[in-house]
Amino acid sequence: MEVSIQENERKIEVCFTPALFPVYYSSNDCVVVVIDVFRATSAICTAFAHGVNSIIPVSSVSDAIAYKNDGYIAAAERSGEIVEGFDMGNSPFSYMDPNLKGKDIVLTTTNGTKAIERAKAADTIIIGSFLNLEAVVDYLSKKNKNVLLLCAGWKNRFNLEDSLFAGAVSHYLSENKTFTGLADSSIAARALYREAKEDMGAFLKNSSHRKRLERLNLEKDINFCLQKSIYTEVPEFKGNALKI
Amino acid sequence: MEVSIQENERKIEVCFTPALFPVYYSSNDCVVVVIDVFRATSAICTAFAHGVNSIIPVSSVSDAIAYKNDGYIAAAERSGEIVEGFDMGNSPFSYMDPNLKGKDIVLTTTNGTKAIERAKAADTIIIGSFLNLEAVVDYLSKKNKNVLLLCAGWKNRFNLEDSLFAGAVSHYLSENKTFTGLADSSIAARALYREAKEDMGAFLKNSSHRKRLERLNLEKDINFCLQKSIYTEVPEFKGNALKI
Repeated sequence: MEVSIQENERKIEVCFTPALFPVYYSSNDCVVVVIDVFRATSAICTAFAHGVNSIIPVSSVSDAIAYKNDGYIAAAERSGEIVEGFDMGNSPFSYMDPNLKGKDIVLTTTNGTKAIERAKAADTIIIGSFLNLEAVVDYLSKKNKNVLLLCAGWKNRFNLEDSLFAGAVSHYLSENKTFTGLADSSIAARALYREAKEDMGAFLKNSSHRKRLERLNLEKDINFCLQKSIYTEVPEFKGNALKI
Repeated sequence: MEVSIQENERKIEVCFTPALFPVYYSSNDCVVVVIDVFRATSAICTAFAHGVNSIIPVSSVSDAIAYKNDGYIAAAERSGEIVEGFDMGNSPFSYMDPNLKGKDIVLTTTNGTKAIERAKAADTIIIGSFLNLEAVVDYLSKKNKNVLLLCAGWKNRFNLEDSLFAGAVSHYLSENKTFTGLADSSIAARALYREAKEDMGAFLKNSSHRKRLERLNLEKDINFCLQKSIYTEVPEFKGNALKI
C-alpha cells in the first residue's frame, strides 16, 4: 500500500550499506534509491540510455546461469571481474552495444544487485548514479515521499563513492524547501559531497574500490562513472525487472 | 589469542553502527574503540577522571536492577532520560560526585553499553570520547595493532557526533606514518572532522541527537562532552568491567 506523507515534512536518510536496510526501512512512505557507482548502477543507467528494454537483477551467479541456459543475455561480475562463462560484467561500456537494443538482460554483481534484492520490500525502487544525477533529483522532488538512499557499499562495508552520490542527492534535494528532515547520515554525506564535488576523482584517489579497479585496469570505467547527468533515464524496479 | 601485525601496515576502520560490527571485526588484530559521545563514553571517561574504581556495563535495565538489588550503585539511561527507579543516567556531571570515588558502578544506556556488549569478541576494548581524545590517540599509536573505531550510533543508525570523534582519531593517527591503511570509512570520518573541527557545536547544530538532548534541556551536557582532551585516562574493558 502506498503511504502518503505531509508535504513540507519530507525526510532524507542514507543507508550506508545493505546490511543496515532493515534498520532504516520501516514503511512504504519512501522512495528507495539504489546506488552502486562503481559500477552496477552506472552500467544500468548506461544500458537504458542505449535502448535496453529491461534488466532483471539476480543475486547469485547460479541464478544468472539458469537464465542464460534459458536463452537470456546474462551478465555477471564478482570482485570487479567478469565471471567465467559470461561475456559481460558491469562495465558501462559493454552496455552501449547496439545489439542490446530492445533486449532483456539478466545481471548479477558483487554489491549492486544484492542491494536491489534487499530493497524489494519497498514499493518504489529506482536506480541512481552520477550519470543520471539530475534526473534522479528531479524524480525525487516530484514524488510526495521521503527518500532513502541505499548505498551498495563493498561487501556490506561503507564505501566512499556511493556515499558521495548519496551526498550529491542530499545536497540538491536540501535546496528544495519541502525536504526539511535531513538525518545525520544525509548531513554527513552532503558534507562529503560538498568537500569533494570540484574534483571527485582526486577525493576518491585513496578509496579502496578505486584502487581495486585501478589494479584491474579499469581507470577508463572510473572516469566514465564520475560524469554527472549525461543521461536522463531513471530506471525503476517493476515486477521482477528494472524498466524505464 | 593476540595477533601481531606488521609495523608500518596498520589499518584504521570505522564501524558506524554496532549492527555492522560483525562485518568489520574479523580477528584479534585490532583494538576496538567504543564511542558514544552523547553521552555514555563521555560519562565513563569523566567517572574515571574522578576516581571511580570500575564500571560494569550491562545491556538491559533488568540486569542493572539485579545489580542494584545486590547493593551496587547503578545507573540507567534510555532515550536520553534517567530510567525510573534509578538516581543516575549518563550525564557526565553525575559522575563527578566525590561519594563515587573508589566505587564500582553498574551502567546501562540506550546505545553505548550495547556497543560494548557487541565488541566483547575483541581482546582489547577501550573507551573514547572527545574528553580523552589525545590519550586515546597516544594509546593507539603505541599499540602494534590495527584500529577499529566502533560508533554506538543511535539505535543502530549512523550518528554525526560519534562519527566526528572517529574522524578526529583518524585525523591524528593518519599523521602517524605507521598507519598507512585508511579505509573508506576512516577517510570519510576524517573529512567530516576536518570540516567540523573549528566549531563542532555549529556543525552538530542540526544533528538528531543534539536536537533530542536540547529538547531534554541537556545543552550543558552537550557543551561539556565537546571539550577536547581534558582527561588523560583511557578506560579499558577487563573481565566484566571497565577499569583504568
